[in-house]
Amino acid sequence: MLKLVNEGLWRERKIEFWNRLWEDLEIGYLDEDLLPVLIEFNMRPKSYTISSCSGRIILSDSEKPWSREETNIVFKKHEPITIDELINVTYKPITKRLWLIVSGPILHISTLDLDEALSILKIARLAGFKHSGILSINKMKGIIVELQTGIRFTQLIKVKNTSLISQSQASILVDIANEILLDGKQALFKLYRELYGNRPKNLDEYIIRYLNEHNIELDKIVQRLYLREDLGENIEFI
Amino acid sequence: MLKLVNEGLWRERKIEFWNRLWEDLEIGYLDEDLLPVLIEFNMRPKSYTISSCSGRIILSDSEKPWSREETNIVFKKHEPITIDELINVTYKPITKRLWLIVSGPILHISTLDLDEALSILKIARLAGFKHSGILSINKMKGIIVELQTGIRFTQLIKVKNTSLISQSQASILVDIANEILLDGKQALFKLYRELYGNRPKNLDEYIIRYLNEHNIELDKIVQRLYLREDLGENIEFI
Repeated sequence: MLKLVNEGLWRERKIEFWNRLWEDLEIGYLDEDLLPVLIEFNMRPKSYTISSCSGRIILSDSEKPWSREETNIVFKKHEPITIDELINVTYKPITKRLWLIVSGPILHISTLDLDEALSILKIARLAGFKHSGILSINKMKGIIVELQTGIRFTQLIKVKNTSLISQSQASILVDIANEILLDGKQALFKLYRELYGNRPKNLDEYIIRYLNEHNIELDKIVQRLYLREDLGENIEFI
Repeated sequence: MLKLVNEGLWRERKIEFWNRLWEDLEIGYLDEDLLPVLIEFNMRPKSYTISSCSGRIILSDSEKPWSREETNIVFKKHEPITIDELINVTYKPITKRLWLIVSGPILHISTLDLDEALSILKIARLAGFKHSGILSINKMKGIIVELQTGIRFTQLIKVKNTSLISQSQASILVDIANEILLDGKQALFKLYRELYGNRPKNLDEYIIRYLNEHNIELDKIVQRLYLREDLGENIEFI
């Protein structure tokens, strides 16, 4: 197999990103729901995780729903929202259009070679991450893979002063937005399960040692995060 | 460069797909707006186009907006819609939830090698196709690249018997749906322009000969399709 990536430099970055992951978790930058999936990826010797989001509900005051500027975001939550939270935002004046946007999980992985990138794409597709692909190849940064589901929903809520929802409609919308957010969390759980079921023969020794030394027990994290009651009956640990 | 793809077999498939493209166009299966982009891709010796959509507006009766079953689709159009078209559908009974979904262009390209796949991803990103990546690598079928923008909009219209839009809201929605459909068509035009500006030194001789023999004039097709008045003032041929 052709060497597209410099193994030494790649390895250094893997350890850097791994350490940063735990710092981010400590200061609350990292969404905890991602943890089991991130650990599984990093246990693979030829993969490490770069950046990820477990899914979120936002309200954006922007011309188009795909506008990426953070300044447009007037509300953001990684957990289910309430009717009051939605209604409160719709009372405030907006400058453009107000969109409710629910997005599913998105993950960026760096792999050491093409075989590993293709293995990960296969695993991701088994878990329903159908919009996944290799984004770029860089000698130092590795082969960058993006994993994404089709779980996404936008709803136009308000245009200038005209609200498009009534109080009773707000309740229907909130239910559906929360349902779709949980669909995303379930996809993350499925991804964890596929990663677990398709572990390579040898795991990354550095990562395993780190987990042991820090008393991080993956099984317990999975139990605590993915088997919560609010995730509904559809999630079952098999 | 490592040979991931068998050149002879790949070449045979390129010609098969190229011939099918013109058959599809003749019987109305191919959306004409795609033509200049498809021709540009196929003129590259190491690329051919597999399947594509220039963007569409659909109404889907399904539990979730990302449901892919064609049987859920109760309305489909690749051109702007009218208020009456939307209202007529909302009068009909539905079984689940009625979603208005506008999607931007999506293209699937096969390339002969990794360098070409990465070149295409670069060109696509210049044109705003940010959700693009290599999906798979197959010795015979080639390196499969998906090109997609973030241009997408869904709106929940009806849940069982409860309609979520009034007549006046329908008019706002139709305007925005059409606006977003045209955003997609403009992205396609940008992609054409980037492909044109980044042509490889040598073009595919078979394709060039085919175009000459069939009197297909790319410039004229571009003029006719992309410089139409209804695409608005934002599109300018530079």
